[in-house]
Amino acid sequence: MTYCVGLKIDRGLVFMSDTRTNAGIDSISTFRKMHVWEKPGERVVVLMSAGNLATTQNVISLLNGRAKPLEQRSAAVLDTPSMYQTARLIGETVREVIRDSAPTGQRADSYFNASFILGGQIRGSVPRLFMIYPEGNFIESTDDTPFFQVGETKYGKPIIVRTYDREMSFAESVKLLMVSFDSTLKSNLSVGLPLDLLYYGKDEFRVGVQRRIAQDDPYYRTVSEGWSDALKNAFKSLPDFPEA
Amino acid sequence: MTYCVGLKIDRGLVFMSDTRTNAGIDSISTFRKMHVWEKPGERVVVLMSAGNLATTQNVISLLNGRAKPLEQRSAAVLDTPSMYQTARLIGETVREVIRDSAPTGQRADSYFNASFILGGQIRGSVPRLFMIYPEGNFIESTDDTPFFQVGETKYGKPIIVRTYDREMSFAESVKLLMVSFDSTLKSNLSVGLPLDLLYYGKDEFRVGVQRRIAQDDPYYRTVSEGWSDALKNAFKSLPDFPEA
Repeated sequence: MTYCVGLKIDRGLVFMSDTRTNAGIDSISTFRKMHVWEKPGERVVVLMSAGNLATTQNVISLLNGRAKPLEQRSAAVLDTPSMYQTARLIGETVREVIRDSAPTGQRADSYFNASFILGGQIRGSVPRLFMIYPEGNFIESTDDTPFFQVGETKYGKPIIVRTYDREMSFAESVKLLMVSFDSTLKSNLSVGLPLDLLYYGKDEFRVGVQRRIAQDDPYYRTVSEGWSDALKNAFKSLPDFPEA
Repeated sequence: MTYCVGLKIDRGLVFMSDTRTNAGIDSISTFRKMHVWEKPGERVVVLMSAGNLATTQNVISLLNGRAKPLEQRSAAVLDTPSMYQTARLIGETVREVIRDSAPTGQRADSYFNASFILGGQIRGSVPRLFMIYPEGNFIESTDDTPFFQVGETKYGKPIIVRTYDREMSFAESVKLLMVSFDSTLKSNLSVGLPLDLLYYGKDEFRVGVQRRIAQDDPYYRTVSEGWSDALKNAFKSLPDFPEA
C-alpha cells in the first residue's frame, strides 16, 4: 500500500508521500513515490503515485522520455502549455501503460491499477492540484475539496478534515501532514517511513523545500510523541459520559 | 456499511453500534445491529453485526428459535454452557445461513458476508469478547487486543489505539467510543446515527446501561462539537515545522 497527500492552501501546495511498497507482507521495499520536474522561473510539476509499482515506474519513465533515444530525451511534462494539459498527458500515459500490461485489454484491471496526485504551477496560471485515476481521467481540487489522498487514506483523513484551513502556513500544513501520516503509520504496516515532503510557494516557480524525513528526524519524533500526549489531553478535556 | 465496536475493560464490556444500512447510496434504512439476550443473575449475551442485512437478520432469527413452532421457541444463546460454546453456535449459524444463500455452495461469498462481535458473561466464567467471521470461525480478545471493530473500522481506529486504557471507567470508555464514532460519521456517509450503546459491569449478570443515542442527544453533541475544538487545540499545542 501507500499513502500520499496533496494539499492546496492559499500560500501554495504541500505534498507528502511514504516510500513503502510491498508485494505481499513478506516482500517490502523502499521506493520514492514523489517525482518532481522543475524549470526554475517557469514551472514546477509534482507527481505522487499509488498502486502497482511496475505501472507507476513505467508511467514515470515514459513521462521522462526514456522510451526515446538518449539524445532526443526530454521530460514531456516540462513542455505542456498548462497544468490541465499535463494532467491529460499523464492520464493518457497511465491508460496506455495499464492497457499494455493487461493482455485481455482491460483498462482498469485491478492488478495493474495506479492512481496519481498531480500538482504544480506553470507561469501564466495559478497553482493547480489534480487526482488522476487508473482509467486516465482526472478531477481537479476546488475550494470545497482542497486536498487529495491516494492509497491507505482512511486513518489519516479525520485530522485533515477537522484542522485544514486554507489560510494555514507551510509550517502548520507540514505539521498537519505529519500528524496524518503518523496516524496512518501507527495503524497500517503497509505504509512506512521515510517520508518525502515538498512544498511549493505560489508564484515562486521553483521548489520551496524538499526533504526526506526518516525515523530519526527530530521534528517527526516530536510530532509523533507529542501527538499521542496531545490527543490524550484533548480526550481528557471532554466531559465523561454522565450516566455511567 | 456499518460501524460496531466492542471493548473489554477491567470493569466489564462496552458495546456501540450504528444503525445505518444501505443497498447502494440511494437506499438507506435504519436497523438495529445490536442484539441482547439476558437471563438476569445468570448471563448477558450481546451480539453486534456487520454485513449483508438478509444474512445478519436470518442469523438473529435462527438464534431466537424463530424457525421452530411458537410454543417450542427459545433463544438458543440462553442455553449454551459457556461463551465459547455461544461463539461456536453463532459461528455455525452464520456458516449455515451464508451457505444456504449462495447457490454455488461458496461459504464466504462476499455478497452474503457478515461479521459479528459477541460479548458477554455467563455465571462461572469471566466476561469474554469474540469476533466471528463469515466463515464461522472466531477469535477471542486478549490483553494485547482488547477491542474488536467490524464494518467501516479505519477512521475511528487511531483514537482507540491511542487512548484505550484497560483501567478506564465506563464514563471514559463511552466517551472514547463516542469520539471514535463521531470521527467515522464525519468521514463516511454509510455510517449513521442513531447509535446503540450498551455496557455491562463484570459479575453483574444484568445489562448495565442500554441507550439509543440520537442526533439531538446532548452528550453526543457536546462530544462531537467539543472534539473538533479539542483536536484543534491539541494540534496547535504541537510545534510547527521549523524549516518553513
